[in-house]
Amino acid sequence: MRDVCIVGVGCTPVGEFWEVPLRDLAARAIRAALADAAPYVNGLPVEALYIGNALGGSLSGQGHLGPLLADYAGLPGVLSTTVEAAGASGGAALHAAWTAVAAGAVDVALVLGVEKVTDTVGPERTAALTVGLDYDYEAVQGATPAAMAALLMRLYMNAYDLTLEQFEGFSMNAHANGHHNPHAMFRNLLKPGRFATAPLVAPPVNLFDSAPEADGAAAVILMAADQVHGPADMVNNAAAAPVRIAASAGATDTLALAERADPLWLQAAHLSAGRAFAQAGINPADVDFFELHDSYTVISALSLEACGFAARGTGWQVAANGDLALTGRLPISTFGGLKARGHPFGATGVYQAVEAVAHLRGTGGENQVQGARIGLIQNLGGLAASAFTHVLVAQDKIV
Amino acid sequence: MRDVCIVGVGCTPVGEFWEVPLRDLAARAIRAALADAAPYVNGLPVEALYIGNALGGSLSGQGHLGPLLADYAGLPGVLSTTVEAAGASGGAALHAAWTAVAAGAVDVALVLGVEKVTDTVGPERTAALTVGLDYDYEAVQGATPAAMAALLMRLYMNAYDLTLEQFEGFSMNAHANGHHNPHAMFRNLLKPGRFATAPLVAPPVNLFDSAPEADGAAAVILMAADQVHGPADMVNNAAAAPVRIAASAGATDTLALAERADPLWLQAAHLSAGRAFAQAGINPADVDFFELHDSYTVISALSLEACGFAARGTGWQVAANGDLALTGRLPISTFGGLKARGHPFGATGVYQAVEAVAHLRGTGGENQVQGARIGLIQNLGGLAASAFTHVLVAQDKIV
Repeated sequence: MRDVCIVGVGCTPVGEFWEVPLRDLAARAIRAALADAAPYVNGLPVEALYIGNALGGSLSGQGHLGPLLADYAGLPGVLSTTVEAAGASGGAALHAAWTAVAAGAVDVALVLGVEKVTDTVGPERTAALTVGLDYDYEAVQGATPAAMAALLMRLYMNAYDLTLEQFEGFSMNAHANGHHNPHAMFRNLLKPGRFATAPLVAPPVNLFDSAPEADGAAAVILMAADQVHGPADMVNNAAAAPVRIAASAGATDTLALAERADPLWLQAAHLSAGRAFAQAGINPADVDFFELHDSYTVISALSLEACGFAARGTGWQVAANGDLALTGRLPISTFGGLKARGHPFGATGVYQAVEAVAHLRGTGGENQVQGARIGLIQNLGGLAASAFTHVLVAQDKIV
Repeated sequence: MRDVCIVGVGCTPVGEFWEVPLRDLAARAIRAALADAAPYVNGLPVEALYIGNALGGSLSGQGHLGPLLADYAGLPGVLSTTVEAAGASGGAALHAAWTAVAAGAVDVALVLGVEKVTDTVGPERTAALTVGLDYDYEAVQGATPAAMAALLMRLYMNAYDLTLEQFEGFSMNAHANGHHNPHAMFRNLLKPGRFATAPLVAPPVNLFDSAPEADGAAAVILMAADQVHGPADMVNNAAAAPVRIAASAGATDTLALAERADPLWLQAAHLSAGRAFAQAGINPADVDFFELHDSYTVISALSLEACGFAARGTGWQVAANGDLALTGRLPISTFGGLKARGHPFGATGVYQAVEAVAHLRGTGGENQVQGARIGLIQNLGGLAASAFTHVLVAQDKIV
């Protein structure tokens, strides 16, 4: 397999864009990424476009995005497909593009995550968002993603004798980091104590436990490392340097929560992280920051456990001890995470990549994890039924 | 890139299966393919499952098929995603799996095409099937796939001064070949003259111009060629021999028909076929049979032109001159095609692969193209807005 680098990134802010059609939201992110990558791509054609999107068909009537967006973004004729894994669609699309470049099938590939959610309201939106669940055994009973997360959170709280307050730190950290991120949906700080009194969404899950539904588009451009020959002042300039994808791995768990022998163990997150660590030849201790899939605070706690950053039953402690802050032992949700940056569903995994690249280029501004060299990003779909995990590594110098 | 072989195939019949849930239809095809491949796979784990499906979310409520089907088919934990390109989803999934094996990311991958269409009836089904069109400019105006094909057929007939009768041969051939295929939805022969009097679906498109909506599931198992070490009596037995994927290529056209400068030229079909020929190092003249995407007779004519088998404006002549028969110069729709085998939408591209493997193994029975060594399969999505083309080659001997 060939080494693969990210040579350009771009995204729109995350929020509510009722006036912007899906195709325009997508084109904005693609144009930004192409501009960022231009010195490296340098005339080489983009040969493939992989699209992470899960709700285009159900909420925008557009379920055939490959030709639509390739054409609209000025890439006529390129190979293009949608890659779907519910909320992990973005990570799955990144994996598909990495595979194509690693294989040598293409030299330059574009990954797009795009989602339009907020101009549909009420039961229609909720029904569409149950796409990640097992319809025949969960959604048909009226279960929503928040309801399923509530079952899991209750189970976790009971198992380890926890109170709601003990999850507060996850949300405080996300909002603290979203505060400085110009692309974040929520930039307000969360006052201590506010968390515990928030309105309940599905008890015990409250408003600040759960990530907001949002619109957004993010894009990254992948190139075969051996094709990266930008101008010397670019490739050796850390602020614009290529970032290597040292690992790209995926895994699945049962779709229905009730099918899991051990619901408090996120098997897909565990398997895909393990595969990624092995592929990159690193251990959890080598990771400088972890963009995890904080769709719910309990998922953050369980992700930390599944990926080897906390012993079983102790993931929640990270919320309290400061380890998760930008200056802590393992920064998470560094640009606000799903909670504060916002969760544009199938686009989220690509936002994670865009943010990781900023850290590894040292362009994170107020959100910068100082000295970051190795970043882990993990994108989950459904109640962690799908997981895609990538290891991104800073490049000192491209020769 | 590594060479990739198909070492097992399986499928369900195509038809109406109101009593079989999507997951069961999928599992039947997967089990059949795994059994067929067992001597080669021989204990090696299937590491990835790529699913071609476009309507699971809209018609079955199941839009997160990766974890659902990996678990249900007995492949817990494997990487799995859905790959979508409307009616070309099956071909797109085959391409994704080929890419993963060619890259060396996995040694054994499973491709599944599955679709449940027929237990939804009326406007809801029709609306779901417009997924291949541009919603904002076509479907929202009431356009259906048949209506768009009718526009194209009228344009073609006007351009070359043709009558409806001149398309009859495509349908006659499809039904003649479906007659012997135990998996075909329609096994009745079409009497000469019956075509021209068929009920109109969307004038000039009639019932026998257009492929039937259907349920079905098909699966193929891909392996890295250098890992194929079955028992000598298997690998050197043509009837069970691995088949090499000599090319796998995709392309896109504008999604909306009105955006095309030259609507009578299927640019995506042309580009992907050209890329596949180049990758395989062959010319159209080398092809022994062509499983084309005969969703409508006019699409058959245009596909023959776009892929270099007929000059512009002459694709329709193939319907009349016998070239398209099993014993002709270029057999098409050899097991009935979309028209008579049936068109289970996102699964169709995988059925094409299953049928091509039968020819190349010499197990095609009454449908066998004698002496077939090189097969071309092409799967289209929307009005040929997406195209995936594969070249499959018989292997004399695996060493």
